[in-house]
Amino acid sequence: MADDARTDDDTALDTRRVARILDAVEAGNTAELTRLLEPLHAADVADLLEQISGEQRRNLLAMWSGEIDGDILSEISDSIREEVIESLPPEVVAEAMRDLDTDDVVDILEDLEEPAQEAILSTLDQADRVAVEQALAYPEYSAGRLMQREVVTAPEHWTVGEMIDHMRSVDWLPDQFYHVILVDPRMKPVSYVTLGRMLSARRDVTLKSIVEDSFRIIEANEPEADVAYLFNQYHLISCPVVDRHGRLVGVITIDDAMNVLDEEHQEDMLRMAGVDDEATLADTVWEATKGRALWLFVNLLTAILASVVISAFAETIEQMVALAVLMPIVASMGGNAGTQSMTVAVRALATRDLTPRNAARVIRREVAVGAINGAVFGVLMALVAGVWFGVPMLAVVIGLAMVLTLIAAAFGGIAIPMALERAGVDPALASGPFVTTVTDVVGFFAFLGLASWILL
Amino acid sequence: MADDARTDDDTALDTRRVARILDAVEAGNTAELTRLLEPLHAADVADLLEQISGEQRRNLLAMWSGEIDGDILSEISDSIREEVIESLPPEVVAEAMRDLDTDDVVDILEDLEEPAQEAILSTLDQADRVAVEQALAYPEYSAGRLMQREVVTAPEHWTVGEMIDHMRSVDWLPDQFYHVILVDPRMKPVSYVTLGRMLSARRDVTLKSIVEDSFRIIEANEPEADVAYLFNQYHLISCPVVDRHGRLVGVITIDDAMNVLDEEHQEDMLRMAGVDDEATLADTVWEATKGRALWLFVNLLTAILASVVISAFAETIEQMVALAVLMPIVASMGGNAGTQSMTVAVRALATRDLTPRNAARVIRREVAVGAINGAVFGVLMALVAGVWFGVPMLAVVIGLAMVLTLIAAAFGGIAIPMALERAGVDPALASGPFVTTVTDVVGFFAFLGLASWILL
Repeated sequence: MADDARTDDDTALDTRRVARILDAVEAGNTAELTRLLEPLHAADVADLLEQISGEQRRNLLAMWSGEIDGDILSEISDSIREEVIESLPPEVVAEAMRDLDTDDVVDILEDLEEPAQEAILSTLDQADRVAVEQALAYPEYSAGRLMQREVVTAPEHWTVGEMIDHMRSVDWLPDQFYHVILVDPRMKPVSYVTLGRMLSARRDVTLKSIVEDSFRIIEANEPEADVAYLFNQYHLISCPVVDRHGRLVGVITIDDAMNVLDEEHQEDMLRMAGVDDEATLADTVWEATKGRALWLFVNLLTAILASVVISAFAETIEQMVALAVLMPIVASMGGNAGTQSMTVAVRALATRDLTPRNAARVIRREVAVGAINGAVFGVLMALVAGVWFGVPMLAVVIGLAMVLTLIAAAFGGIAIPMALERAGVDPALASGPFVTTVTDVVGFFAFLGLASWILL
Repeated sequence: MADDARTDDDTALDTRRVARILDAVEAGNTAELTRLLEPLHAADVADLLEQISGEQRRNLLAMWSGEIDGDILSEISDSIREEVIESLPPEVVAEAMRDLDTDDVVDILEDLEEPAQEAILSTLDQADRVAVEQALAYPEYSAGRLMQREVVTAPEHWTVGEMIDHMRSVDWLPDQFYHVILVDPRMKPVSYVTLGRMLSARRDVTLKSIVEDSFRIIEANEPEADVAYLFNQYHLISCPVVDRHGRLVGVITIDDAMNVLDEEHQEDMLRMAGVDDEATLADTVWEATKGRALWLFVNLLTAILASVVISAFAETIEQMVALAVLMPIVASMGGNAGTQSMTVAVRALATRDLTPRNAARVIRREVAVGAINGAVFGVLMALVAGVWFGVPMLAVVIGLAMVLTLIAAAFGGIAIPMALERAGVDPALASGPFVTTVTDVVGFFAFLGLASWILL
């Protein structure tokens, strides 16, 4: 690495630095604490606050509260932000808010309770407060909440030279911007020009002649998930946001879209596992317990349902205890095959690769996959069961049950997420319990039903 | 929406357009096909090719092969790209490659077989071929493969005016760039300036005086996952890439990093479900079957292991068939609680929130959560079992077994991914089977063991 450039090594949140920071907190050594925290990026300070225990956090904040700025508050996870803000003196919070662009203030405010929101809003100056309140008027998780209101625009007929002169003369420009948006006289965005194109063009070139193909528009009420999709699908860097009348109200940049994409991923993953989708490692035991209990409860109900199926065959099991030994294998294989299909389906729905149009073909493929793997593992398990228990017909029963269960698992794994999506329910959230119910019930019923029919 | 701007409606890949495209293909109506495909973005054409059946794809390509350009080939998923390229006339492929930046050519070539790679390389002109071969010399999934070699640099002492004049005079500039990278005389990157800052500064301002804080450097051999983390953590827009000696060799932009983030997430999700991590909906039945069979086989082994545990208690079950009815409930609850902890752990490892330093605290929290939920659902299930079978001691057994199993699940769910990570194995890939083994074995052993000890 270049020794004269900032490398990761001297500014990263490594284990040794964290240990030294915690030592300084414990020793009450503010000078040392500042020396260690100072070079860190706001995102790393936020990570540190999330990773240490609640008590360590309170002590650190008590010693270092004056240095907590807007960037750090922006980076902190929602789960501890309220706690951090409450522990800070009001004037520190007010100062921190003044540093930030309005979209970052909105991002912080939207997760706070009403009184905390009010307290912060009252510290903003009039113009900022109006801007923040307007943004909060858009629905949660909409493009309007995500956008920044600071936009750089130009009339279509301007030349590169006029635009550069204009930019040099205005006394504010957004921190980050990548395009000049061309607008018509009614403030409707018409196209945009990248800064790179502008810089390499001669002063007398018109902006209109160097616009980009990639131009797209987002409506402020559109959900942020659609924003992330649009950026990812069309490789956008920034995208103008318009109101219901098509008038420019803001711009969304790719770093915000990337953040949304990352959060959507996290949500999908946690929801599929039946965990509260806002779970973080900083949650308390009580929050984490609550965040998992709902799905465990749903799972208990489906497990009891499966047990009811088993109890219908209690007599069969009494006559041949090998059935009790083998039946979890069928259910387990079904559960896994179902999860495989379901995951493929949930992901394909999220990326919009699975549509009503190719659904029939995908379902046929999944069922074929289920049938083939069912046959393969059915034969394998039949051999194992035959050797283990020495009852040829038991081998036949488990083999057939495996085929039926894996076909049902494949079908349920793809059809259930699709049906939920069509019903407007997030498939990542609700597919799991339904798929498990199908595979458990079919698994036990097929195996024990075939057994009582063929064996006894 | 603004009626004079390009909105989604007229260019989107909706069901009706797809149906009309397929009709045109079937009717052999090339003019109509072109009219429908022409306005689509390359990413949408690629999606279309992925969503239709193999036969439809072959027919469409036969009619429209001349129009397949580099952008479409770039967007197409790896799983069908080789098939598409092979179906195209060599001169079309050569022409398509000439359109692309070298990083896009690398992205296409790296997934092709040797002979196809050679065929394409031979169509490139000398300079491009050397650049592509140099990029391919970097490890797969490294920053070196991801970067573009076209960079815009300036000596530190230049002024804004000198830089703008320079940019106007050169005859090439990259398609997308967001920073001018300042380099020292040995081509080591020292800092960078955003184009926005440059455009708003006066001509006599030195570049050195308007550099950005956010500056970071990536080494070409670093894995692309680290690149995505860096961009996401520090909100980078572009980042210079250096060789082992710290010399600038390229630049990575945020759209590439966002793409990596998306792919990493897909991999994690599919791996956790035991699906081949490159699976797509365009895979054939045979590919999909193979891509799932390995994990089903591993699962079969762990299920058989659980059955061995059950068979050790065959006599106990024979004496009380209610045990066979209830035992899947304990295992199922354990499996779900284990998956919850595991998902939280895998995600936190990926985002680097879970580190050796806070591991002990997180494990304690998970075990506490497991114990509380175990107690809650243990009591609930004890009540159900007591009412159902009227055997008080059976209720006690299932309640205790639930507590033990959920504690083991919580511990295994967090400790196993951490151990795998430390051993250099991707926790998303291998945690599932281990966690399931733990929850199944502990679940059946605790329930049946307690039953044979307390009840009989």
